[in-house]
Amino acid sequence: MEKKRRTEIAELGEFGLIDLLTSGVEPTNDSTLRAVGDDAAVMLPPAGEAVLCSTDLLTEGVDFDLTYFPLKHLGYKAVTVAGSDILAMNARPSQLMVSLGVSAKMSVEALQELYEGIAFACREQGIDLVGGDTKASVTGLTLNLTAIGHAPKERIVSRGGAQQNDLICISGNLGAAYMGLRLLEREKRVLADVENPEPKFGGYEYLLEKYLKPRLRRDIVDALAEEGIVPTSMIDLSDGLASDLLQICKASKCGARIYLDRIPIAKQTYALAEELHADPVVAALNGGEDHELLFTVPLAMQEQVMKMGCVDVIGHITPESTGAYLVTPDGSDIRLRAQGFAEKE
Amino acid sequence: MEKKRRTEIAELGEFGLIDLLTSGVEPTNDSTLRAVGDDAAVMLPPAGEAVLCSTDLLTEGVDFDLTYFPLKHLGYKAVTVAGSDILAMNARPSQLMVSLGVSAKMSVEALQELYEGIAFACREQGIDLVGGDTKASVTGLTLNLTAIGHAPKERIVSRGGAQQNDLICISGNLGAAYMGLRLLEREKRVLADVENPEPKFGGYEYLLEKYLKPRLRRDIVDALAEEGIVPTSMIDLSDGLASDLLQICKASKCGARIYLDRIPIAKQTYALAEELHADPVVAALNGGEDHELLFTVPLAMQEQVMKMGCVDVIGHITPESTGAYLVTPDGSDIRLRAQGFAEKE
Repeated sequence: MEKKRRTEIAELGEFGLIDLLTSGVEPTNDSTLRAVGDDAAVMLPPAGEAVLCSTDLLTEGVDFDLTYFPLKHLGYKAVTVAGSDILAMNARPSQLMVSLGVSAKMSVEALQELYEGIAFACREQGIDLVGGDTKASVTGLTLNLTAIGHAPKERIVSRGGAQQNDLICISGNLGAAYMGLRLLEREKRVLADVENPEPKFGGYEYLLEKYLKPRLRRDIVDALAEEGIVPTSMIDLSDGLASDLLQICKASKCGARIYLDRIPIAKQTYALAEELHADPVVAALNGGEDHELLFTVPLAMQEQVMKMGCVDVIGHITPESTGAYLVTPDGSDIRLRAQGFAEKE
Repeated sequence: MEKKRRTEIAELGEFGLIDLLTSGVEPTNDSTLRAVGDDAAVMLPPAGEAVLCSTDLLTEGVDFDLTYFPLKHLGYKAVTVAGSDILAMNARPSQLMVSLGVSAKMSVEALQELYEGIAFACREQGIDLVGGDTKASVTGLTLNLTAIGHAPKERIVSRGGAQQNDLICISGNLGAAYMGLRLLEREKRVLADVENPEPKFGGYEYLLEKYLKPRLRRDIVDALAEEGIVPTSMIDLSDGLASDLLQICKASKCGARIYLDRIPIAKQTYALAEELHADPVVAALNGGEDHELLFTVPLAMQEQVMKMGCVDVIGHITPESTGAYLVTPDGSDIRLRAQGFAEKE
């Protein structure tokens, strides 16, 4: 039983809905010339700077399950998913456009919750909401986010610049988001037929937050700038360490060796993995959705990287011919694969 | 029975699919620094120019019906829908990003057809395909397109600059796309239970083309530049003349008077409307999806506008207090409404 007031979208119409959702969202960046309310948004980046643009689609039932995904968190996470791609180019997201495909089953109040999460993340990250599109959907909720940023050309980092002997670095820890998802899925299964379900998350709040409300690692891009480091390559960890490192190897035409005992994994990730008889290393390598940054720097920059304090060096770049491997503590080499890791060599 | 080869998307995987779909799509614009293949696209507009960005969501069952919408045309039309928003700001689209939500029922070959249409429109219009996102969808096909352009700040036109006595101008003719849709819907209904349906479109090919494969009116923006005209306001006709003119009135804080006998309506639109007992004027006012341009210019520019040859003057801007009206040949004033037009005054 829904106690909250429920307003049907049809009562407002498309334009009324857009006005309501975007009211009170005022642009704050100098580069935003025109935001919501015209055919297109207009940006004027600082003279000589290049513009970065990235787009992400999130669909109900594939990227999120509304059974356990609070709409406010979904809005917040969507901004992280979109903005993370701009950070991965060593730039900061400054504008965002949101397309919504909305089924009739959603109320205006539900959409307001979603937008609250979007607006909260935007304010926190200094991002202006500059436009979007709102449409009916005969199926589930669909979101598409377009993130825009700008940066001096010479500071923009691609996936393709890693050089032999470069250090492979990552921010944060891996596998936590995936284990958060596993926990939510377990509770959904267990409580499927319970009338007033009370899921048990005790002790695993960190994992839930990493899955439901991951933060943008803007602090990493800031710290890199502070230490005067321009990475040779960078990618955001959305598909899992193995898959994303292989993307760098492919684009940079290089190999890699990473060391199992250097991969940072949180205590809670280990604990839940044990409870669920899962392998925390598999979660770290293939879980995905960590939205941490994976990057390479020249060996000579080791000291500066260590000074950042929030980054781990997990391995180094090798020649392309040697392939990409995970080295276990007993010295075995395991070839990295985009999905799972299997054969020993 | 499908005679063509059918490759499942799972055989290729997400990255293989993206590689296949975007192969052979090489950027040609100077402003494109990096296209497909990194976390974000990178653009460098000419010094001092502003960047325009617009996003559009198209969902199966709402924006298109795959029963009669050839995928190649859908791809082409999607580019028009997205690019038209940039034209409406008096700029030209130069880059495009495509997000796809793809259900398992679609084959790789079907997606290739869709992309052929996208690539064809991009080549025709000088637009670079610079990125996107491809995801599974548990429901229907979903497309989100983000169009990017650039222009000198002083040439960018918003909805909000129309002044009293300005002339209201439109390109092309109205209502044809809507009647094309009506025709397709009729044939779908009539042939629902027929085994080898042979729809009858004789004589109405123009209407089908306006609905299924509308062209971007880049020629209008080019012609405006040639005549040295910067419109005072502009919008692209996607929701119907009434609704879109009201958007200009709202943003410009003005009223409008347009004249029924000056609204250009194609012969085929009249003919099919008669056959279907529909009102061609309602199609023109409320049909939508024309993707023509509606703009205002100072009265003093009448001569230059006429010289363009491809534009009709259908009325003029009035003070806000007088409201927005359609004037019929017998001199009646009908108040314009976003949906339909009703009361006489």
